[in-house]
Amino acid sequence: MNAHSTGRLIGVGTGPGDPDLLTVKAVKALEQADVVAYFAKQGRGGNGRAIVEDLLRADVTLLPLYYPVTTEIDKDAPEYSRQITTFYDASAEIVAAHLRAGKTVAVLSEGDPLFYGSYMHLHVRLADRFPTEVIPGVTAMSGCWSLAGLPMVQGDDVLSVLPGTMAEGELARRLGDTQAAVIMKVGRNLPKIRRALETAGRLDEAIYVERGTMMNGAMTPLASRADIEAPYFSLILVPGWEGKP
Amino acid sequence: MNAHSTGRLIGVGTGPGDPDLLTVKAVKALEQADVVAYFAKQGRGGNGRAIVEDLLRADVTLLPLYYPVTTEIDKDAPEYSRQITTFYDASAEIVAAHLRAGKTVAVLSEGDPLFYGSYMHLHVRLADRFPTEVIPGVTAMSGCWSLAGLPMVQGDDVLSVLPGTMAEGELARRLGDTQAAVIMKVGRNLPKIRRALETAGRLDEAIYVERGTMMNGAMTPLASRADIEAPYFSLILVPGWEGKP
Repeated sequence: MNAHSTGRLIGVGTGPGDPDLLTVKAVKALEQADVVAYFAKQGRGGNGRAIVEDLLRADVTLLPLYYPVTTEIDKDAPEYSRQITTFYDASAEIVAAHLRAGKTVAVLSEGDPLFYGSYMHLHVRLADRFPTEVIPGVTAMSGCWSLAGLPMVQGDDVLSVLPGTMAEGELARRLGDTQAAVIMKVGRNLPKIRRALETAGRLDEAIYVERGTMMNGAMTPLASRADIEAPYFSLILVPGWEGKP
Repeated sequence: MNAHSTGRLIGVGTGPGDPDLLTVKAVKALEQADVVAYFAKQGRGGNGRAIVEDLLRADVTLLPLYYPVTTEIDKDAPEYSRQITTFYDASAEIVAAHLRAGKTVAVLSEGDPLFYGSYMHLHVRLADRFPTEVIPGVTAMSGCWSLAGLPMVQGDDVLSVLPGTMAEGELARRLGDTQAAVIMKVGRNLPKIRRALETAGRLDEAIYVERGTMMNGAMTPLASRADIEAPYFSLILVPGWEGKP
């Protein structure tokens, strides 16, 4: 394949939510892209697209990639795995067709593309076939601890990024074995996460942040928050830097 | 104190090195700041300042804050601790004087300000006394894995950010207890880090990245790199996402 005859794939980090937290490079990439692709739930506009809405050219081709399933099927079920793999394969081929036609395709990715981003599913299917660039973005966790003004890690601190889906004992063990922690995927796992923090003796330090840099962001010490289900995009931060002045 | 009579402290993340990886918000903050402060070694311009050089207004007041010591004294020595604490105290008071005079002071921080940034030493001394905002930035690690096009973490992966200064056994234990890892502070610790990765069975996956998004960046599988001292700002990445297609 002649690379000069094809377009370019660009994974674009859109940052944590505030359009001003896109990088200058991401803004330029969106201005120049022929096609802007993004993952979204059926019938939704997509969070990534909402962030960049005002930056999109009027003549750009929008390419929404709608998930076939979200919470209808258990994520551990083989049927979920089959459907989602078929979906990523098909999505990659749709993007590939645009690239073969010489189009530059920007794929939106909330936060940072290679840090838990859906873009990664296209990247691993296309990056060895087409010229590809990844534009890093501000992660949701950076957006959250900046909004909270929370000094997070310093010096020789260890930071652990942990999924709230983890078993309680395992989560408690890891929280007791790190200076700082970020707990992702809070949602319905909040009561379990609270117990794990208490077991590890870290509950009093934990800060709960809801959609860090969105307009409706909120933060509060976790210890004072009711144990009701949290939005999926909320985070819990346990700061390090024990010796701070 | 009347908040309206004082200026504002802004911690500005400058990202990993490429000026285009500043956020739009960071660029605006630098355009509006009266004073731009930055930490630097004696006689040097400072990496943060080099990144934003072309964005600085001609009439801005530059406030370099020169470290009194760098590698001359052992970091564990009480004398180092005393000198550096005195320096941060004095630096905070210099910045405070500008804030009391009603000036907006932007403090440059490479990468993300609250993620191992020197800005944190000013933040903890000033944020409860003056209106303060932190503008998050793209971290060096995001810059590095994006440049490498390396899918880093996905799904329920754990990510561990580890200092290369850690004892070898402890480093090996943690590398064997995580899906993905970023090892910071490589420098003279490279031979030890390599042994720890080998013990943990992760050496073959490890990628060495030098000054990710600087003009002189370089990356290579760690296994094929000579065991000579690495620059302080190099990183080692161990990717997760074991089940990737």
